[in-house]
Order: sequence, then structure tokens, then C-alpha cells
Amino acid sequence: MTFEPGKEFMEKTKYGQPSPSSDQAKGLPYPPVELECSGTDCALDLPDPKGFNPADISVTDAISQRVSVRKYADKPLTLHELSYLLWCTQGVKSIKSHLATFRNVPSAGARHAFETYLLVNHVTGLIPGLYRFLAVDHQLVRMEAPDNIGDIITEACIKQKFVQTSAVTFIWTAATYRMTYRYGQRGYRYLHLDAGHVCQNLYLAAEAIDSGVCAIAAFDDDKLNQALHIDGHEQFAIYVATLGKKL
Amino acid sequence: MTFEPGKEFMEKTKYGQPSPSSDQAKGLPYPPVELECSGTDCALDLPDPKGFNPADISVTDAISQRVSVRKYADKPLTLHELSYLLWCTQGVKSIKSHLATFRNVPSAGARHAFETYLLVNHVTGLIPGLYRFLAVDHQLVRMEAPDNIGDIITEACIKQKFVQTSAVTFIWTAATYRMTYRYGQRGYRYLHLDAGHVCQNLYLAAEAIDSGVCAIAAFDDDKLNQALHIDGHEQFAIYVATLGKKL
Repeated sequence: MTFEPGKEFMEKTKYGQPSPSSDQAKGLPYPPVELECSGTDCALDLPDPKGFNPADISVTDAISQRVSVRKYADKPLTLHELSYLLWCTQGVKSIKSHLATFRNVPSAGARHAFETYLLVNHVTGLIPGLYRFLAVDHQLVRMEAPDNIGDIITEACIKQKFVQTSAVTFIWTAATYRMTYRYGQRGYRYLHLDAGHVCQNLYLAAEAIDSGVCAIAAFDDDKLNQALHIDGHEQFAIYVATLGKKL
Repeated sequence: MTFEPGKEFMEKTKYGQPSPSSDQAKGLPYPPVELECSGTDCALDLPDPKGFNPADISVTDAISQRVSVRKYADKPLTLHELSYLLWCTQGVKSIKSHLATFRNVPSAGARHAFETYLLVNHVTGLIPGLYRFLAVDHQLVRMEAPDNIGDIITEACIKQKFVQTSAVTFIWTAATYRMTYRYGQRGYRYLHLDAGHVCQNLYLAAEAIDSGVCAIAAFDDDKLNQALHIDGHEQFAIYVATLGKKL
């Protein structure tokens, strides 16, 4: 028997294939633009990214000098630098009547179906641990996590050790229904395309703060989702990227 | 019966799920870094992208000012501008023993499993029509196509008319085996993540040449693949983006 779930997925999600109407087409209510989060009463307001002055590197130089970087200097990231990176990757520029957001990345139908988690290892002013970014309010919330969360996430990332030597590791999770609400099962394609946009912005923004990035798509889905306390279906880890100062 | 091919795909392509060994793991020969192309004896050498001076826009400004643009000025793109965009999106910086390429975008395992097609509408010096980019030699080849190829591709893109008013429309196709050779069926995730990287570079590079982009993921797969004379399995259209000068 052939094992071709990728090929089957592409076949079954062709545009216009007979498939159930999307919930949007049925007139069901829009899902929220951000998933709920506990602990928001302790949320930290991130520094205003507009007040930050990254290096004046041209977009062309950023594109052409980017390489994947797996070895980092033992230097912390500042909170302002982290704020800048979150702004470049998922920053909300405006909200359309609470139905959709416009951000610093493109997204299919402005669905922006991601929630960003951070493994913070070495950021000035932050206790190392697991955090969630609240894009709408540009805030960070510390998540409950065991002391060895770095070990756990490194293990989930197939023991790629630069997860632990990074200053911060970005973990983008898909809030599935925010996308499938509009696009049905074809939306799983769009989630991955959109995650690629986001990660590329991280790669390029990193160049403006003397940092390097390595994207990770090889991770143990179950272990990573468990580490984030997400169910793996309604919300699942879709892409990971480590970041640290260049040597 | 539930129709959940996206969810099933994610489940069946979890890392470490029981699945056949990849062809790379079996020691089978590497696939080529570029698909063969007929008509290369008539290939056009593109202007050297390193000799081009785009506007000196910072990466931060490019990221924050980018919006999706669907209305374009009636101005042509120059061949040098097109060469620059192709360089930023798929330009080959080096080849590793013909086994892998390093490019101006990141790709899982440096697989770079794309072939770029162009619907050229309004580029100085080029006859409108369908072209393929040969990334290794930074060349363009004109493909055989009917005179109304613009209509055909617009129709395949669900009649989104800005395909036809764009100066050029990029159509990225996946050379599936170049990715699955190493990553098996999970590679279908990576193809989409990688296509997102590529498209985001197009969005940002466009800012340096006073142009705008609109990504299109809603297309009739069969019609678009047929228009490109690709089979839809070994090679399939994965992402589309229109581009033109800003109004």
C-alpha cells in the first residue's frame, strides 16, 4: 500500500473540489483574532517597537547576506530587540472591527491564524522560561512551565542543541479554526505558506540587530504540542526558529 | 463522514511516525537541483543582479510599509528589475557538488524544490507570454504557450483580474521529489513553508523597486498545472504572486 498522505492532501484540497461549505460561507460567527490566554493580568507591556532604531540595513543586503545561523554569541537580546522582532513577525497594525487583523506580514484573507510562543533563554529583563506573545496588545505573558522547559523543547526539536543556546526560540502555533473558518481544509496549505512569510521576516529583521536565525521544521509534533499545553489539532506547533546574536 | 484531509495530513506526517524510509536514507541518487527544460538553446541571460541598484530602503521599512497591492500603474518593469526580483526570490549563490544549492532564501535541508514560472505582461524587452526561470544560470526561457495564456492563467486564478494587469505574475511550482527524496511525505509541509519564505522575499524586494505584490493561494490547481504543462503531482503549482509598479 502506498503511503502518500502529502499527495492525497494536495489532491483532496484542490480548489473547488466538492467539500463542505466553510463556516464563513454558512454565516457562522467569526472566531476571535487571538486565542484566550490565562495570566494576562500579569502581562508585560513590551517596549514600543516604533521607538526602536535597528541598524539601517537595506532590504537587499538583508536578503543577500542572510544565512541560517546555528551558533550564537553568549550575549543577551534586549527586551527592545525582542519587541522589534515580534513586531516584524506578527505585529498588529490595525484591527478591522475585531474580525480580522492587519499585520506586518501578509496572510491569506488576513486570517493571521497564529499564536507565538517563545522559549526565552537569554533576554535582558526576562526570567528564562516559556512565554506567549499577545499580538493585539503587544504584550508578553509568562506561561506556567517546568524549570527544564528548555530541555523539553530541545528534546521535542529532535535534540537540536542550538534551541538551548539561542537567546530566544520562536514557536509559531496555528489556531486552526481561525483559518479553516474561511478556507476549510485547503486552509492547512495556507497556514504553512503564512508561517513561511512570518519566519522569513524573522530571518531578515534579525539582520538589523546583528543576529542570526535557524528555522526548524523537524520537530516531534506531539512532544512540542504537549510542552506548550496545546491539543495538537485546534492549535498545533507549525514552525520553530532559533535566534541569537552573531558570533 | 468527516472531511478532514488537512487534519489527517498533519496527523500522518508527524515527525517519527512509522513511514517508509526516505530515498535519501536508502542511499538512492540525489535528484537534480533543477528540472530539465527544453528550449535552453534560446535562453536569455538575465542582467547581473549584483549590478543593479535598487532603492536604499531599510529592511525594517520594507517590512512595515508592505501591504498587498492589487492595482498597478500602467508602467513596465525593466529587465534588470525582473532579474533583481528573481535573484531575491530564488537566486543561486552557490552549488554544493551539484547536490544542493544555496540561495537567497532559506529552504529545508537546502532542498530548494521550486521551479519559477512567469506570466510576463509588461516587462521592457520581453515579448509577453509564459517564461521559466533557470535559477542555476540566472536565465529566462520562453515557454510555448497560446497567445491567450494571460486569460488562461487569470481564469485558473479564479478570475482575479490583477493577474492580467500585473507587470509580471510569479508562479512557483514544486518539484516534489527534490523535497520528498529527503523528507518523505512530511516534505509537503516544508514545500509550503519554503514557498512562504520565497513569496515574502518578493513582497519585500518589491518595496525597493516601487512595486507592489499580491500573493494568490486560491487557484484552480488543475487548470493552472495544465496551463504550465506540468502533471500536478511530480510538479505542481504551489503559490502565485502578482507584481506591478505602484500607482
